[in-house]
Amino acid sequence: MKKIPFFLILLLALNAGAQSNSEADSLNIRKLYDVALLQGQGYAWLDHLSNKIGGRLSGSVNAQRAVDYTKAELEKLGLDRVWLQPVMVPKWTRGNPEYAYIQSPGSPSNTVNILALGGSVATPDTGLRAKVIEVQGIEDLARYGKEQIEGKIVFYNRPMRADLIHTFEAYGGCVDQRYSGAAEAAKYGAVGVIVRSLSHKIDDYPHTGSMSYGDLPNSKRIPAAAISTKDAEYLSSLLKLNKDLDFYYKMNCRNFEDVESYNVIGEIKGSERPDEYIVVGGHLDSWDVGDGAHDDGAGVVQSMEVLRLFKEAGVRPKRTIRVVLFMNEENGLRGGNKYAEVAKQNGENHIFALESDSGGFTPRGFSFDARDSQFEKIESWKPLFEPYLIHYFARGGSGADIGPLRNESTVLAGLRPDSQRYFDHHHAATDTFESVNKRELELGAATMASLVYLVDKYGFDDIKNDPEIPK
Amino acid sequence: MKKIPFFLILLLALNAGAQSNSEADSLNIRKLYDVALLQGQGYAWLDHLSNKIGGRLSGSVNAQRAVDYTKAELEKLGLDRVWLQPVMVPKWTRGNPEYAYIQSPGSPSNTVNILALGGSVATPDTGLRAKVIEVQGIEDLARYGKEQIEGKIVFYNRPMRADLIHTFEAYGGCVDQRYSGAAEAAKYGAVGVIVRSLSHKIDDYPHTGSMSYGDLPNSKRIPAAAISTKDAEYLSSLLKLNKDLDFYYKMNCRNFEDVESYNVIGEIKGSERPDEYIVVGGHLDSWDVGDGAHDDGAGVVQSMEVLRLFKEAGVRPKRTIRVVLFMNEENGLRGGNKYAEVAKQNGENHIFALESDSGGFTPRGFSFDARDSQFEKIESWKPLFEPYLIHYFARGGSGADIGPLRNESTVLAGLRPDSQRYFDHHHAATDTFESVNKRELELGAATMASLVYLVDKYGFDDIKNDPEIPK
Repeated sequence: MKKIPFFLILLLALNAGAQSNSEADSLNIRKLYDVALLQGQGYAWLDHLSNKIGGRLSGSVNAQRAVDYTKAELEKLGLDRVWLQPVMVPKWTRGNPEYAYIQSPGSPSNTVNILALGGSVATPDTGLRAKVIEVQGIEDLARYGKEQIEGKIVFYNRPMRADLIHTFEAYGGCVDQRYSGAAEAAKYGAVGVIVRSLSHKIDDYPHTGSMSYGDLPNSKRIPAAAISTKDAEYLSSLLKLNKDLDFYYKMNCRNFEDVESYNVIGEIKGSERPDEYIVVGGHLDSWDVGDGAHDDGAGVVQSMEVLRLFKEAGVRPKRTIRVVLFMNEENGLRGGNKYAEVAKQNGENHIFALESDSGGFTPRGFSFDARDSQFEKIESWKPLFEPYLIHYFARGGSGADIGPLRNESTVLAGLRPDSQRYFDHHHAATDTFESVNKRELELGAATMASLVYLVDKYGFDDIKNDPEIPK
Repeated sequence: MKKIPFFLILLLALNAGAQSNSEADSLNIRKLYDVALLQGQGYAWLDHLSNKIGGRLSGSVNAQRAVDYTKAELEKLGLDRVWLQPVMVPKWTRGNPEYAYIQSPGSPSNTVNILALGGSVATPDTGLRAKVIEVQGIEDLARYGKEQIEGKIVFYNRPMRADLIHTFEAYGGCVDQRYSGAAEAAKYGAVGVIVRSLSHKIDDYPHTGSMSYGDLPNSKRIPAAAISTKDAEYLSSLLKLNKDLDFYYKMNCRNFEDVESYNVIGEIKGSERPDEYIVVGGHLDSWDVGDGAHDDGAGVVQSMEVLRLFKEAGVRPKRTIRVVLFMNEENGLRGGNKYAEVAKQNGENHIFALESDSGGFTPRGFSFDARDSQFEKIESWKPLFEPYLIHYFARGGSGADIGPLRNESTVLAGLRPDSQRYFDHHHAATDTFESVNKRELELGAATMASLVYLVDKYGFDDIKNDPEIPK
């Protein structure tokens, strides 16, 4: 028999090692999915958050109830530590429901569906009535100028593009109207703004969301509302017939002083490297309309579920795995900022953070804020996800709450569920428990747990001194 | 300057050709998606089929209305030919709604939700009341034997497995209870069968579906019903407390003589090879409960849309593209058989057939009945689908209606949408228009059109004499 060269033996041994590693990984991942699909807990948690609590706007009683509930539920899981992290958050209230109508000359008035944007000032007590100028975006303001805008309500009506496959891209192409539309229109003397709801669907539900006046003084701030897509189309049609119509709206919202609230945190201590942290999270606050079931009840319960799946499947992590339920993503990001600030103060080494904040739909994959070499390592795990129909691994974008953890070495990731239905529900009364499918929610949790399992097992040590610039 | 060898020039030329081909393909596919998403027609067609017509059971007035409607709509598209293909179909009617209750000894009765299975005989006019034996599948019958089964109602209660990622696999693991459960139980002297609905969801909606008595004589046929999953769990719990309970049900269904119906067919004649046919289709009939929106209204309108997208995008096919709306997939497959029979009589060369019959959800890809070499060719097109998040190309399974076209050379394919929600709606009152998302439906149509475009352009000529056995 010929002698087998040593390097071949080594190669075979390494291959065998790789093989059995990958086999063990397959089995552990299958276990995580099995527990999620056969004994899932997330759907029941979401039922409670949506139907027993409901909308959880920062600073509200419901937000506090959600803090208490999730802390108590995490405590039942037998984690090594569960605690609240105090954070001051803005408090804005909607007050009594909004009321709005269109008054065309010589016609009876027609009520339309609006919602105050989060952070908006109220209208005067008797409401606000003015002529309307329709624009397709902030860039139109300069074209019309003060001359045509002063004293009017600016109606932003650029729709989300239907031809974009990634609906978040379509959202990104319109959200400036909602966020900065009031501040910009005020500069031209507008007295109010009405913004077309950010949804593909033509229906009667207005979609709220955050807005900012920037550095505009209080005296210059004008009330801002979202109008349903159906009523936006209606208003636009009426304006084509007669520009001389009046729009009336009354909003009773109010800004208060900041109040104290909390991030809810739980952790399983790592068995080998307890000082290296992996974060998985979503945000506990939501808008006040609907139940915040997809945004972001789903992400909250999936993140809690990741730690439960580890426990139930008997997977003991080497590193410390933390679930962080962030407060105030929607209108301030105070929870995300606070968590990163405290982590920095404590000198905690976060190697990885994963957020779920894109709805509880069928998971398709992940997007990553990572260096090339880190991303390549993650991509090498793709075959392990194929049996679960997880195919999408892309660069760019992770999650708002984990964004402040960004530095030279931490890998950030976002779960990417199917996005086609997301904006039918986002920030609207339609974001309810019934719109979340149990299996889809569970598949998302298992997919997150599987990625956390792989990152915990393999880490990014081998490439941490890689000199390239993070992307 | 050195001379460049001829083969290198040839290679470069071929590459350049391939490059520009692939660029042209990208652009044409983008055009198909744009038309589908920006000027889609399928959703409006589906609205009509679901809400103006509704359930379209073979042989019913509604099935005929669907034939008339889709023929008229196809005629508006300016196709080269639209026609009806006569086919005799079974006619079974549900009659008045079913009624069922459980009577536990010494307790008041509890009504439960059932639906007659399609093809079942009725109960006696006064209903059927008997003791119940619960089994986990047909294979349990032999274990209990005639002794324990005779005179009883067999209650098939094996649930769909939740741990399987592909829900159709879970369905396949249970559907024998529904299809053959009555015929098998009758052999042991059972007087009726009740089958747990084929759904993952625990709710009050029973799911009907086809069943067969095989060669059982009329006198031996026993009534078969689906019970909702919630009531199946309830019945099972009661049986654990007391096996001595009675189950009562009354069903008023009836089998009639076959009646004439139609496949609806339209085609665009090929510009270069008009005698080569590509079929795209779904089935026009549905069950009588719900509106058959996902099953298979979605497949019908997507298939119609494929031809419309070709026209609107200005893509002229080389081969003849046919849309076939098959009649009677649900309880007979007569339409599929008839189409294949006539195609054979006419000596029509079908190179490809694609069916959409898995719901109108976000498309994930396709499955194929094809030879290795054909499948490899199709797989080489995968990169063209990546921008649309179409990643799944698998072997095995296409569609029931196109199955009879199977031969040594024809490639068969099925659209594979996300399957997680499908069985929440399948064959139940919950299969309504509202459960179909416009964008998801449109993405499916564009995905189908893109594959048809590529098959039409490249065909399988180069591999048609391939000697391997089809898989």
